[in-house]
Amino acid sequence: MTVRIAIDCMGGDHGLSVTVPAALAFARHEPQAQLLLVGRAADIEGMIGRVTDLRDRVQVRHADEVVTMDEPPAQALRGKRNSSMRVAINLVKDGAADVVVSAGNTGALMAISRFVLKTLDGIDRPAIASVLPNERGGTTTMLDLGANVDCTAEHLLQFAILGSSLVAAIDEKERPTVGLLNIGEEVIKGNEVAKRAAELLRASPLNFHGNVEGNDIYKGTTDVVVCDGFVGNVALKASEGLAQMLAGMIKDEFTRGPLSRALAVFAYPVLSRFKRRVDHRRYNGASLLGLRGIVIKSHGSADAYAFEQAIRRGYEAARHGLLERTIAAMQPFAIQLAAQPSAQPNAEPAQPQPANDQPRAAAA
Amino acid sequence: MTVRIAIDCMGGDHGLSVTVPAALAFARHEPQAQLLLVGRAADIEGMIGRVTDLRDRVQVRHADEVVTMDEPPAQALRGKRNSSMRVAINLVKDGAADVVVSAGNTGALMAISRFVLKTLDGIDRPAIASVLPNERGGTTTMLDLGANVDCTAEHLLQFAILGSSLVAAIDEKERPTVGLLNIGEEVIKGNEVAKRAAELLRASPLNFHGNVEGNDIYKGTTDVVVCDGFVGNVALKASEGLAQMLAGMIKDEFTRGPLSRALAVFAYPVLSRFKRRVDHRRYNGASLLGLRGIVIKSHGSADAYAFEQAIRRGYEAARHGLLERTIAAMQPFAIQLAAQPSAQPNAEPAQPQPANDQPRAAAA
Repeated sequence: MTVRIAIDCMGGDHGLSVTVPAALAFARHEPQAQLLLVGRAADIEGMIGRVTDLRDRVQVRHADEVVTMDEPPAQALRGKRNSSMRVAINLVKDGAADVVVSAGNTGALMAISRFVLKTLDGIDRPAIASVLPNERGGTTTMLDLGANVDCTAEHLLQFAILGSSLVAAIDEKERPTVGLLNIGEEVIKGNEVAKRAAELLRASPLNFHGNVEGNDIYKGTTDVVVCDGFVGNVALKASEGLAQMLAGMIKDEFTRGPLSRALAVFAYPVLSRFKRRVDHRRYNGASLLGLRGIVIKSHGSADAYAFEQAIRRGYEAARHGLLERTIAAMQPFAIQLAAQPSAQPNAEPAQPQPANDQPRAAAA
Repeated sequence: MTVRIAIDCMGGDHGLSVTVPAALAFARHEPQAQLLLVGRAADIEGMIGRVTDLRDRVQVRHADEVVTMDEPPAQALRGKRNSSMRVAINLVKDGAADVVVSAGNTGALMAISRFVLKTLDGIDRPAIASVLPNERGGTTTMLDLGANVDCTAEHLLQFAILGSSLVAAIDEKERPTVGLLNIGEEVIKGNEVAKRAAELLRASPLNFHGNVEGNDIYKGTTDVVVCDGFVGNVALKASEGLAQMLAGMIKDEFTRGPLSRALAVFAYPVLSRFKRRVDHRRYNGASLLGLRGIVIKSHGSADAYAFEQAIRRGYEAARHGLLERTIAAMQPFAIQLAAQPSAQPNAEPAQPQPANDQPRAAAA
């Protein structure tokens, strides 16, 4: 089965110098992949001109404009209709690509994806999901990681459905377990939203495990961990910071004196195996879920290896029919979601109007 | 200067078997410390009977009852007036001790401390603060870590004042920097409460650095990181989970085969130095801030070494006059805090009445 992947080549901290080599490497590794490289055509052609063996599977689509990394989402959405990001997303909307991958500005990617692709029926807001390694040797899928900071219990239920569908599709698990991120032993067990969300989840057909705590993410207690985007973002970034500090300390200890440096030489194979196991680049590629199309967000600072992993994540999602499976998984919830007070029909007008142009998430 | 420390000897997962040896070890290390061991007197006397050299500085106070680790706070508060926890807190209230240390049930400790000691003027809710190691080789003080899950911007301002006072006292820093935990690059920069809190902090006399992200905790970007208790608790526990997973993986890699095991022997001194540096037991002992008395909460699972660190934290707080300094630091905020809509005078009645008996935090 051929998978057509649109790549926003201008996005990310490093732009073309990372995205194009990563795309070519992926095309070489994956003969079923067809790539549409979107951005300044002359520059991209200049980079791939000498590559002859892949040209039937690697095409270039020109886009004049570039969304910068710090551009306000609303400006990127309204002011740059010919950005590489938007053109790439349009390819998914028009059915020319099965998935889009971008390392660009998260806010803009979310806003444009939402405006162009629209959300699925029953989904108010898209969510950002990512996988984290766990003690069991598998991965834990966590969402939302920053798209929605003020969430209702109904939003958390929607995230749970989306995350569960993602794991069901990609990992081919029948009924992934879902945990609601909460606080445990301390004074009060959870805030009001978390309490109500637990009730909704318990009443749903999902395989709801119950509340989980921060450490359960890495224990792998459940396949999916659901939380609001503020909490998820803080937990993710605190983890990144801690991992970086610990890596620095290990390096520090092994370079502290001649003896330690000598030991480091001996310990090198073991340490590098450890390093490979926890390499965050392997887990690069977050999914923007809840849209009528598959959108993958790479870390902005990704190198070519990391960006290739994000492309792979998009490829796997499309190959496993994530979108169709999510829509099917939504069916049992149709009545429940429609009954929720916050569930709004997906009624963005085809023609942008000022009030609706800006996605709800960014307006919150 | 003598510091009198009341110790709830019955608290924690291990009770007397951890608290009493830790207390004796601390008394040996710190000739300025006077310890009041609270709990079942016969059992404690049985354990310290043969210790003759410390008896002038180690006294026993009997308490019949024990607050269990899973007891609802309200029940511990109303039903067990002669618990070791309550008797120990009473010693602080009555001026017989300068600080109380407990490894017991967090919710009960918070509820009883709040009821017995009351909050400081201008403080609505006590907060839990702890220190975490950072890349700079120092520590970052973070609060709240789970006492308050639904916070207003005014509460976050109060936490900032309390955390800043703590660092000023213990680390003898003139004007500690304060960061507000928030989310960065993603779609929206922070929720509504965080936005308003940033305004309040900017207008305050605190040394406000601005927003920080999860990774800044371990970078040591600011001396103090302020957040609501839900976010703080999740970030802390996610960090604990990640650290545990990484430690397990390192161990795993070094025991994977005969060669790796041999390398581990060589690398042992370096790895154990690393382990010592990140040993979470060294950072044991959270401060319950905002009360009219110094209360230190040890991790429930603490061993004797860890519990001794918690006693040390209490000792240092009392020795540095944390309470007096906090009250002094509150002065410039008196008008600002009184003007906040959520600031309520500290008007719990001396005689418990049903509606007020339960502390506000637990009633949320």
